[in-house]
Amino acid sequence: MLCSELRKHAGQEVTIAGWLRRVRHVGRQLAFWVVQDRSGWAQAVLAGELGQNTPPLESVVRIEGMAVTANSAQGVELQARAVEVLSFAQAELPFEINQPEIKAGLDLQLDHRVLSLRHPAAQAVFRIQSTIGEAFRRYLLGQGLVEVHTPKIVATGTEGGAELFPVQYFEQSAFLAQSPQFYKQMLVAAGFERVFEVAPAFRAEEHNTSRHTNEFTSLDLEMGFVEHEDTLMNLEEALLKFVVQEVQGRHAAELELLGVTLPTISRIPRVTLAAAQGILQERYGHSSPAGNLDPQGEKLLCQYAEEEHGTSLIFVTHYPAAHRPFYALPCADDPELTHSFDLLCKGVEVTTGGLRIHRPEQLLAAMQSRGLNPAAYGFYLEAFELGAPPHGGFAIGLERLTARLLDLDNLRQATLFPRDRTRLVP
Amino acid sequence: MLCSELRKHAGQEVTIAGWLRRVRHVGRQLAFWVVQDRSGWAQAVLAGELGQNTPPLESVVRIEGMAVTANSAQGVELQARAVEVLSFAQAELPFEINQPEIKAGLDLQLDHRVLSLRHPAAQAVFRIQSTIGEAFRRYLLGQGLVEVHTPKIVATGTEGGAELFPVQYFEQSAFLAQSPQFYKQMLVAAGFERVFEVAPAFRAEEHNTSRHTNEFTSLDLEMGFVEHEDTLMNLEEALLKFVVQEVQGRHAAELELLGVTLPTISRIPRVTLAAAQGILQERYGHSSPAGNLDPQGEKLLCQYAEEEHGTSLIFVTHYPAAHRPFYALPCADDPELTHSFDLLCKGVEVTTGGLRIHRPEQLLAAMQSRGLNPAAYGFYLEAFELGAPPHGGFAIGLERLTARLLDLDNLRQATLFPRDRTRLVP
Repeated sequence: MLCSELRKHAGQEVTIAGWLRRVRHVGRQLAFWVVQDRSGWAQAVLAGELGQNTPPLESVVRIEGMAVTANSAQGVELQARAVEVLSFAQAELPFEINQPEIKAGLDLQLDHRVLSLRHPAAQAVFRIQSTIGEAFRRYLLGQGLVEVHTPKIVATGTEGGAELFPVQYFEQSAFLAQSPQFYKQMLVAAGFERVFEVAPAFRAEEHNTSRHTNEFTSLDLEMGFVEHEDTLMNLEEALLKFVVQEVQGRHAAELELLGVTLPTISRIPRVTLAAAQGILQERYGHSSPAGNLDPQGEKLLCQYAEEEHGTSLIFVTHYPAAHRPFYALPCADDPELTHSFDLLCKGVEVTTGGLRIHRPEQLLAAMQSRGLNPAAYGFYLEAFELGAPPHGGFAIGLERLTARLLDLDNLRQATLFPRDRTRLVP
Repeated sequence: MLCSELRKHAGQEVTIAGWLRRVRHVGRQLAFWVVQDRSGWAQAVLAGELGQNTPPLESVVRIEGMAVTANSAQGVELQARAVEVLSFAQAELPFEINQPEIKAGLDLQLDHRVLSLRHPAAQAVFRIQSTIGEAFRRYLLGQGLVEVHTPKIVATGTEGGAELFPVQYFEQSAFLAQSPQFYKQMLVAAGFERVFEVAPAFRAEEHNTSRHTNEFTSLDLEMGFVEHEDTLMNLEEALLKFVVQEVQGRHAAELELLGVTLPTISRIPRVTLAAAQGILQERYGHSSPAGNLDPQGEKLLCQYAEEEHGTSLIFVTHYPAAHRPFYALPCADDPELTHSFDLLCKGVEVTTGGLRIHRPEQLLAAMQSRGLNPAAYGFYLEAFELGAPPHGGFAIGLERLTARLLDLDNLRQATLFPRDRTRLVP
């Protein structure tokens, strides 16, 4: 039986099993054990000999007994009749997890991830993350998108070779995919028209900051017959609204535990990058780098959105071609700019998206102007020579979105087993 | 408007868009175009000048006009008023796809995957595959499992170093994960108890057969407090029953197009490996290799299941420890055997699963007896030293399951962009 169901079984013989999270002795004859399973916790009372031999905290125990109404606040507790230790934990734990907060640095917590993940706050984060992924898929399936699985071992990088992890693929040199970009576009052209993928992506970035990891889960989508980036932003708005509603509806207890109020998503403001840079300069005296926003600029712009539009999210549009990948579609009236956008959420970019070039001659020219070798991209170019509709899409970093929605300081707190500049284990 | 909706709009002005799949001229003044989009196809009639300039087949076109009731079998066709070519396809296609079957070898089809995927049979396969994945997840979420994302760049292989693709991870040597085995077990121990993952797995196997690829999508699950492998097989039975029902319910048209009758899944027979080998020997005169079944044996055993139990699926249990990974739980009454199973479906293994060792001292001994260096597995062993429940799980190869359910000869027909011994592109 699940620990959380104990209260419904007063007066019955039941068995619970879980991790021994806390022990309290009252005199020599009585012990109180708090047992935690995936559903919550229950208290067991062990009288006489039963309570004498206490296994180390975090051991896995199974307890049979009678559920009885208790005087304590717990409501119903288990009068133990028999105890079995299914697994003895080591006597000394690296840190305590039966406290409101783990008193250990993030690195130590990540070193002993199996232990730190048992903390209710960590459990809450990843149960919510599971719902975010499910809501993402469910919404898109409802919009006629097909889920696809594209290869992560690739012959060519999407952006021309930088930030790729090399893989030895038998006799050949290969790389880990930075994104499913080429493949999702190819699948639009292959007649699926609307596709999404939930899969790992790999970036050999040297950054080692609270907002970077080197392997993450990318929520990707791409749609054909889309000719305005507003269509994509409208979709993302509706999608995120659905995601937030699902999390809110199913995780009220977890959100309360985390002390988090989710943002309300209605209309997300949209500003061009040029306008955003103007706002930052005029309103906050903050100068932006050419063609982009810096981390501080992203924070201030979200502050602006909060102040002026009552939301912590904002779309930034019309990034210059020089700062976007070669496949970004330039604006017809100003080819220096592209039909592209980022979504910032609570100070951090969580999405990059936009329209793509779908004419092969234009794509070829864009490649050549970046000094890329078209021969290496033959399989990709061919998709457009075989007839490809106008299209666009975007990608959301699952861990980044989780971290922002739940106000987590570090992306690693939203990553089960982070991979970063120095961490490859566990 | 979607092509399939044309019939509902007789008498109205509409616009359709899609790939120009087929063209027929009647005299000089009339052309019939078949346009295909993700929903199906529609016929447009182009009179006079409109029909004179025909773009190459597979170009992407947009046609405005009046939907009119036609005499032909199509019911409603589009009287074109304006045509726009959104994308010109190259004049010569590598092969024709407007035929009942593509007349090209599989390799050529895979070389030009964007084209071959446009064939309705290929579209059907991958739309069904999307539903298989969704049904897998939906069923498990309903059983209280949490979706997780575990790293694919790992420091240590699950099985001790064979069949791993090396990755250069900054200054460190790393590998691509063969499976999420260690991590899903660790997450059970981390208090999630029940987890599943849908993610790529990588095997550097030298085989280049119709049933092997080197990157595939693994549907993985692991559950705590499971002490009998029957619990896992019962779960898989119910899960596959649900998957088949979902595919049947949503893809009747695709199944008809593919000419496939899905297997009915009720009780899947279970035989020990020893019994299976006996059956093969006595019934078919087929000798099996020690401790395993060969491909021919797997085929014959499914034939036996069909003949004796009226199903094309069969569980084979109690594989010898020598043929299973070190973490497989040995049987208490015969430690040469393990609490493990495979599921065969229509002649091919689609699942491997079983109970795992959860006592750290037993796990350590199992590692040492295989000559594995425990130091390399410290992060994994620690999970069991921190208190881990008895547990087990299994994995289903998504492409293999798709191929078996849909009677596809080659796994590559169920893989969007296969990676095999020689293929890394597209």
